[in-house]
Amino acid sequence: MWVSRCQKMKSQITNALSDFFFEYETPRQVLVRNRRVGVVCRLIQLGVLAYIIGWVFIYEKGYQSTDTAVSSVFTKMKGVGYTNVSGNERVWDVADYVFPPQGDSSFVVMTNYIITEGQKMGTCPELKGKHSCKSDSDCEGGTLKRTGHGQMTGVCVNSTKTCEVLAWCPVEDDHVIPDPPLLMSAENYTLFIKNSVTFPLFGVTRSNLVEGIDAGYISQCLHDPEKAPLCPIFRLGDIVKLSGFSFETIAKVGGAIGIVVDWTCNLDVDIKNCKPKYNFHGLYGNPAETDKARASVGYNFRYAKHYMEDKTEKRTLLKVFGIRFDIIVQSLARKFDIIPTLTAIGSGVGIFGVATVVCDLVLLYLLPKREFYKNMKFKYTDTQTQK
Amino acid sequence: MWVSRCQKMKSQITNALSDFFFEYETPRQVLVRNRRVGVVCRLIQLGVLAYIIGWVFIYEKGYQSTDTAVSSVFTKMKGVGYTNVSGNERVWDVADYVFPPQGDSSFVVMTNYIITEGQKMGTCPELKGKHSCKSDSDCEGGTLKRTGHGQMTGVCVNSTKTCEVLAWCPVEDDHVIPDPPLLMSAENYTLFIKNSVTFPLFGVTRSNLVEGIDAGYISQCLHDPEKAPLCPIFRLGDIVKLSGFSFETIAKVGGAIGIVVDWTCNLDVDIKNCKPKYNFHGLYGNPAETDKARASVGYNFRYAKHYMEDKTEKRTLLKVFGIRFDIIVQSLARKFDIIPTLTAIGSGVGIFGVATVVCDLVLLYLLPKREFYKNMKFKYTDTQTQK
Amino acid sequence: MWVSRCQKMKSQITNALSDFFFEYETPRQVLVRNRRVGVVCRLIQLGVLAYIIGWVFIYEKGYQSTDTAVSSVFTKMKGVGYTNVSGNERVWDVADYVFPPQGDSSFVVMTNYIITEGQKMGTCPELKGKHSCKSDSDCEGGTLKRTGHGQMTGVCVNSTKTCEVLAWCPVEDDHVIPDPPLLMSAENYTLFIKNSVTFPLFGVTRSNLVEGIDAGYISQCLHDPEKAPLCPIFRLGDIVKLSGFSFETIAKVGGAIGIVVDWTCNLDVDIKNCKPKYNFHGLYGNPAETDKARASVGYNFRYAKHYMEDKTEKRTLLKVFGIRFDIIVQSLARKFDIIPTLTAIGSGVGIFGVATVVCDLVLLYLLPKREFYKNMKFKYTDTQTQK
Repeated sequence: MWVSRCQKMKSQITNALSDFFFEYETPRQVLVRNRRVGVVCRLIQLGVLAYIIGWVFIYEKGYQSTDTAVSSVFTKMKGVGYTNVSGNERVWDVADYVFPPQGDSSFVVMTNYIITEGQKMGTCPELKGKHSCKSDSDCEGGTLKRTGHGQMTGVCVNSTKTCEVLAWCPVEDDHVIPDPPLLMSAENYTLFIKNSVTFPLFGVTRSNLVEGIDAGYISQCLHDPEKAPLCPIFRLGDIVKLSGFSFETIAKVGGAIGIVVDWTCNLDVDIKNCKPKYNFHGLYGNPAETDKARASVGYNFRYAKHYMEDKTEKRTLLKVFGIRFDIIVQSLARKFDIIPTLTAIGSGVGIFGVATVVCDLVLLYLLPKREFYKNMKFKYTDTQTQK
Repeated sequence: MWVSRCQKMKSQITNALSDFFFEYETPRQVLVRNRRVGVVCRLIQLGVLAYIIGWVFIYEKGYQSTDTAVSSVFTKMKGVGYTNVSGNERVWDVADYVFPPQGDSSFVVMTNYIITEGQKMGTCPELKGKHSCKSDSDCEGGTLKRTGHGQMTGVCVNSTKTCEVLAWCPVEDDHVIPDPPLLMSAENYTLFIKNSVTFPLFGVTRSNLVEGIDAGYISQCLHDPEKAPLCPIFRLGDIVKLSGFSFETIAKVGGAIGIVVDWTCNLDVDIKNCKPKYNFHGLYGNPAETDKARASVGYNFRYAKHYMEDKTEKRTLLKVFGIRFDIIVQSLARKFDIIPTLTAIGSGVGIFGVATVVCDLVLLYLLPKREFYKNMKFKYTDTQTQK
Repeated sequence: MWVSRCQKMKSQITNALSDFFFEYETPRQVLVRNRRVGVVCRLIQLGVLAYIIGWVFIYEKGYQSTDTAVSSVFTKMKGVGYTNVSGNERVWDVADYVFPPQGDSSFVVMTNYIITEGQKMGTCPELKGKHSCKSDSDCEGGTLKRTGHGQMTGVCVNSTKTCEVLAWCPVEDDHVIPDPPLLMSAENYTLFIKNSVTFPLFGVTRSNLVEGIDAGYISQCLHDPEKAPLCPIFRLGDIVKLSGFSFETIAKVGGAIGIVVDWTCNLDVDIKNCKPKYNFHGLYGNPAETDKARASVGYNFRYAKHYMEDKTEKRTLLKVFGIRFDIIVQSLARKFDIIPTLTAIGSGVGIFGVATVVCDLVLLYLLPKREFYKNMKFKYTDTQTQK
């Protein structure tokens, strides 16, 4: 009994499998020989096909997968500046005017400054115009004003009509910004950018020192959007100009400029074509904008150099106006991948289905002979008379 | 001969083309008039439709393509601190308590410190409790301990029972952290954030100084999640509170706080609606977590100020405890795009096909009249009797 | 009248609705009982199915949506170095050799240096070999050379045959790089990395101090790719070795190394499996590359310490050669999501349609009995004799 039953099952399964493998279903179709419907439908279908091939595949490269890079940037400035403030000659080199010194992707080049030398801890009156007072009662002792320079002692100084504070004295007077900027020579400094990008998905690493950009070329080239677009040495004046700013304005009050290194690479072609493009634009506001209130320029910070003199800690305070450069790496690599290709095809076939639905609507609801076509297309289960 | 053959081919191609253009196939269908199957299938189809329209299109906005931004951040602190350590009054301003000074997106505000003044190169015993020794043989001369302060001289100092080292002497004693923190006044410092984002795919640039946030507003506003959510001036105490920390704890031992600027923008609506949201949270561990071992707070680094005294190089070493702020820009812009729209539609039509398959399974395998439907649906090529 | 018309419309709509709900269309199909076609088509269909299930779903995990993280990194170095330059013993601690000091994700560890002590503003001849001159006419007074050290005074100094400049004097002589590097002890320094990542889409935050990596473990572990892959304490020598460089080479002239913290997480499984992997590789060029011209190693910057001596500002200039470490966080989290799942299914059904089209082509154009099958599949609207 069991054996025969088992054999029966086995043969049933074998039958079902062979049926499954040797059969094949294909939908039955009506071939509508109607010029109007035919032309309309074919045009819709051709449109869908053109969209899939032309747009998705060729224009948008839908057969590729994309990846963005992890990147690393190193910068190096070169050049010296010279200032002559009331006979006091001074030269400024890289160690003096770049903050921070170690070649980060975001750094500041000093172009102007207000120097306050020999500050030491003590009491002195606040800056004129700040925390004015008429009598000691206007200066509450022991309090700190957020915008002040120090802690009030409770005394109103007569000569300046401002409160006395415990602070680094004398306090900095930043009412007048040197004009023209003290370090206009910054225009001729050069910036060297070293940038490497890695696309982890594709295992590709590229450096902005691409083929042909070797030590010999670097030693003598200067970036120019037209003539030397791959040279990684940039003149500061050129960068500022290409961002649409005037160097004198930005050098006086400071500003922030983004240097975009754009890696848009098609890895299906030779990797040598994967080259960086350099763009420059002002950060925090567009120089062409008229809305001055939105602070399109203006960048400064304070920096102190400490020293000991006569056993007393002193400092030289610099209010540094400068150009802040942000090297922004923007990357997008594309490479052929089977998944997006098949997803695009599959989704395209789906849209083909939409075309068929539209044509069917025309056929079954708009044409004069629609009843005829309806009969051709549909078979009804409840009508006992089958064609 | 050739001509006629060529003409024949030409007419053949023309015929095939006209056939192709004037014909149109549409699948033949069985219209099953069965209430149960009908209702089930329509519900499945409506479900799929509701999913595609409701979820993919409306909820997930599948008709839009997305892009993340490249961004640039500039920060500026304001405020002064005051310390009085055993009668030695001192004021700390921005140049003293912010590291680095130039307004980076990641910076540290000093809130507490251990100062070791007047260090100079020389030999002195190691700190008590570190590298203890009983005799000179415990201190191998000429070796460097990774956790020590310098190079051992091979001498065991009797008074401290530690090895003598060549180091910046005297060595720093950081056993006791000042409590309460010396610069509790940091709570009232303010932070100004300037942030611009660019969505390269859409060519859109936005600044966190959006419409209405002009110089006049900034000069007097203070960020508040409810009342002034767009004001870019933040009180340090507020930030710490919103991150869920206690200021006194974090000021004492230091900590790291992330300020997330969230740009989630729908660029299909007016660009004025693309505004930043500010969130604050502790980095490196959740303040609500009970697992204290995972070091949710604690941030310090060492910083030296060098000077010359009597022709000798000396330094003031600061072990700085502070709050490290990381401005993290998180961005996602969405805009209508034809490709994702059609991909979503195409893929939706595909899922419609799945609905049909499910209904067919019900029809052909579960219904009592399944044999009847099978006959209606399928035509067999090997049965010679065709309906 | 109106009422009856309205009722008629209502009943019509009700009818149409009930028709719609109680009917169900399913395509009529031909079941082709042909072994060859059957096998070919089933194989194609199985292939498509295998692709969709095996590749899209299992291998590429197409049922998951992906997200990259926002991250925050804090680093801390430990260790002391010792130099003995012509009898002048010196110890270098963290405050001396790390730039910047505050524990950024990108920092430099000094391994070698050229020191120029006691520079002050003045005039002195340029470095030998730079801006050589034969007479004063070769040195144009008042000009600045981009690669020079200062402003020319117009004098040619006889002893060195170089132009005299106003600069920080004496000028730095960096012709000879100390070899072996002065701070070879840097090999034994250790680096501690604290890293937290947040996947905003999934609301998941992880720290590299995962379960089991507690304070006790950290205090005594040392990273090893095999034995301690999760320990966040790294020996500098190990990092350099794992990047494929020789420590002595890179310590002498400097170099840049990327430490990639790789967070590839499948959030469908227990979050405890979401652990970081650490990789190390040279930035700016591959150490295995033979193209030496592309500057695979070499990293330096200049750094000045200012001080006052006899009322004069002086500085100690350090040309720092060092290893720059960039902690690069690379992240990809995946989690089940209904949208990509259904998109993949829908698109897969679409590709199934392609399989049917291919089989139909075989059936209708390649088989000997193609005319028979064509008749079975198609019904023509213009032939009046309907089967």
